[in-house]
Amino acid sequence: MPGLDSVLSCLDLNLDRSVERLQELLRIPSISTDPAYAPDVRRAAEWLKGDLEAIGFSARVAETVGHPMVVAHHGGAGEGKPQVLFYGHYDVQPVDPIELWDADPFDPKVIAMPDGTKRITGRGSADDKGQLMTFVEACRAFIAETGSLPCRVTIFLEGEEESGSPSLLPFLKENAEELKADVALVCDTNMWDRETPAISTGLRGLVGEEITLTAASMDLHSGYFGGAAANPITILARILGAMHDADGRVTIPGFYDGVPELPADVRKVWDGLGFDDAAFLGAVDLSVPFGEKGRSVLEQTWARPTAEVNGIEGGYTGQGFKTVIASKAHAKVSFRLVFDQDPDAIRENFRQFVRERLPADVSVEFHAHGGSAAIQLPFDSPVLETARQALSDEWPKPAVMIGMGGSIPVVGQFKDTLGMPSLLIGFGHGDDRIHSPNEKYEMTSFAKGQRSWARVLEALGEKGAA
Amino acid sequence: MPGLDSVLSCLDLNLDRSVERLQELLRIPSISTDPAYAPDVRRAAEWLKGDLEAIGFSARVAETVGHPMVVAHHGGAGEGKPQVLFYGHYDVQPVDPIELWDADPFDPKVIAMPDGTKRITGRGSADDKGQLMTFVEACRAFIAETGSLPCRVTIFLEGEEESGSPSLLPFLKENAEELKADVALVCDTNMWDRETPAISTGLRGLVGEEITLTAASMDLHSGYFGGAAANPITILARILGAMHDADGRVTIPGFYDGVPELPADVRKVWDGLGFDDAAFLGAVDLSVPFGEKGRSVLEQTWARPTAEVNGIEGGYTGQGFKTVIASKAHAKVSFRLVFDQDPDAIRENFRQFVRERLPADVSVEFHAHGGSAAIQLPFDSPVLETARQALSDEWPKPAVMIGMGGSIPVVGQFKDTLGMPSLLIGFGHGDDRIHSPNEKYEMTSFAKGQRSWARVLEALGEKGAA
Repeated sequence: MPGLDSVLSCLDLNLDRSVERLQELLRIPSISTDPAYAPDVRRAAEWLKGDLEAIGFSARVAETVGHPMVVAHHGGAGEGKPQVLFYGHYDVQPVDPIELWDADPFDPKVIAMPDGTKRITGRGSADDKGQLMTFVEACRAFIAETGSLPCRVTIFLEGEEESGSPSLLPFLKENAEELKADVALVCDTNMWDRETPAISTGLRGLVGEEITLTAASMDLHSGYFGGAAANPITILARILGAMHDADGRVTIPGFYDGVPELPADVRKVWDGLGFDDAAFLGAVDLSVPFGEKGRSVLEQTWARPTAEVNGIEGGYTGQGFKTVIASKAHAKVSFRLVFDQDPDAIRENFRQFVRERLPADVSVEFHAHGGSAAIQLPFDSPVLETARQALSDEWPKPAVMIGMGGSIPVVGQFKDTLGMPSLLIGFGHGDDRIHSPNEKYEMTSFAKGQRSWARVLEALGEKGAA
Repeated sequence: MPGLDSVLSCLDLNLDRSVERLQELLRIPSISTDPAYAPDVRRAAEWLKGDLEAIGFSARVAETVGHPMVVAHHGGAGEGKPQVLFYGHYDVQPVDPIELWDADPFDPKVIAMPDGTKRITGRGSADDKGQLMTFVEACRAFIAETGSLPCRVTIFLEGEEESGSPSLLPFLKENAEELKADVALVCDTNMWDRETPAISTGLRGLVGEEITLTAASMDLHSGYFGGAAANPITILARILGAMHDADGRVTIPGFYDGVPELPADVRKVWDGLGFDDAAFLGAVDLSVPFGEKGRSVLEQTWARPTAEVNGIEGGYTGQGFKTVIASKAHAKVSFRLVFDQDPDAIRENFRQFVRERLPADVSVEFHAHGGSAAIQLPFDSPVLETARQALSDEWPKPAVMIGMGGSIPVVGQFKDTLGMPSLLIGFGHGDDRIHSPNEKYEMTSFAKGQRSWARVLEALGEKGAA
């Protein structure tokens, strides 16, 4: 029976054909935020259904109250093999400002660059049609060469990722049994650099709180009342100013519960990434990592929790001066969570922290915004090691396991709703200009991305996906 | 030669005539903020010039780039006698919202109340036409009965008080020699209560500062940068939250330089005023004096300096949530000054206080707003005691010397430009609805106000105005 090598050869031989297929998909302007493009969004879904059926998947376009989902199944090598769920999205960002594009965003081209590389241009080339097709092409070659797939595979493609995914959670709940797998493969992220593939193993969680302090029942004149009346801005400043100690640690009781120190080997890998703190901060005219003392920028942003004031407002903020003591002061505060921090406990501890610092006559109202725990694959998880090895076999440099400071909602929903961990593997680059004019996807990303997925599928099939 | 008693009798006998004169002045809609009323403002000035000439003053309408001033002199009993300058303003507030008035604001009436008191209604009745005419009527009666005045008197009436007094300072500077006097008598304030006249001996000064902190050169995503990037809102909160200690004292170095403890006798008088802290605070739904511990509301607002944040702004403050780390944070801070605090030193010490607390990568810009020292007549000043005694002779209860938490710019300008102290004596009441619909002036204020000025003029003529 033909093996991985013949699958990889098949991918190489058929690269031009795969580019043509991607371009066909890119020509469909599946902009999900603009109702005028709803028929195009549906057309992209139908195109994908057709293509997946053509290679042997049982596929359907599944209705939602918004744009449809594409769900396709392939039994692969059978019951004994791991079940994986591949996630991507087939909708794209709007193209405004259209005048900044060098060409029609929906007339994709292959462009040869002076350095000999090629790129595929057009809206969605990187985000996320190019990325999702790397997986589809890997499956196509596997089935063509071997008659099957090394794993049982569900492909789940969303059409609302660029418009807030309103239908995603209900759909996951309604179709939990159908979609549940050993692991989700999510292809919507970047490589570490052009030679080094990356697996994102951690995403920070998020807790948002709006807080409003009220002192007097009306704005007061600071001459008449100043010195005797509580000033809610001053009090809010005092409370928010007390959230960090001199070493940058958050002072809210229990805040670091569930936050382990980074394992030495992970720290060593991250230290070895050659991340340039100075360049990262210098790009926004900062020079010094500001947060917890003695930790690198990568650790601060990937593995440490934060407490940030995202907005503050109170009193007179217009031109000139008004000698007012405001009745109310308002702030939006958010917490990025890591590892096992409990969003509910963080929220409650923060509220308690505030309440304990309120003087007489000052009341507080809280308003909760979101609350999601961090995602963290165990650093020693076997599936992670399997994928890491498979990617390392493909690229010039070994794959690295990285964190992400932000959140990707679908990953949290897979975890919460389906109890399913995610492997975030993507082949994009920071300069792909996603969401911007002149979006592009590197030909290397597309070609070696396909080969990467073939290797990952083969390895998961052999070693399992747990 | 007839004495004070005949002057007082004359005032009583002519009360109806004086009310008619006030009503004539009140019928002129001298709204200074609205250019459409500029001819009316001038008409009021001319009316006053005519009235003052009629009683023996040499009067002129003095041009400015804005509305004119009225300046009138009377040599009184001659060189050996004190020179006083009476200040009032003949312009009035706009009348909007006109629909909330019970009658035409410029058709003044005398209304008898169910409790037997009378009031004079109309825009400007209390602020400040009624008040200024109490002094004019006292002069009229003195001259009518005695042929002269017990002091040399200058009457200085402004037409721009309700529109920010743009011409006042230049006019004082240009006419300093003409206007300088031993003491200014300013009639634009209230009595302590209906039975107790008041002399305001202290006004707090004011220093305003706008402060803008800048960290990164653009707004940042709190997922990507959070934990590594300086947050200017948090830093601003920390700085502003550190301006007071746990006892409510301002922590800026040198802040209390030039702030003496209140003399025991003054404290005793203030304690004896029966000021109701609970009612004062309760009116705005506060219950506890918030500022410096162990001091009464009167002391806090009349004799103690403050540091207040009047406005704060930064980051995202709209609906919902945005996980941003702002580039900038902004606050407006003001300081109320007392006694001998130096506005320049306070400003510089605050700036130093901020600069010392800035971490790396965070810069600050300051923008100065105003800066005026406090006004404080020495509590044992003879002229104060003279006026206090004269007022006490007229009213059911002895006059009290009080402070004021706010500022009255003209008083500072008299001090700074002419080196002249001011006695603030007025007969208004807190319920006169100045600046609001249905403004009124109590007939008792008008009648006994005239008698009060007669007594004060007589006393100053006898005992001096130093």
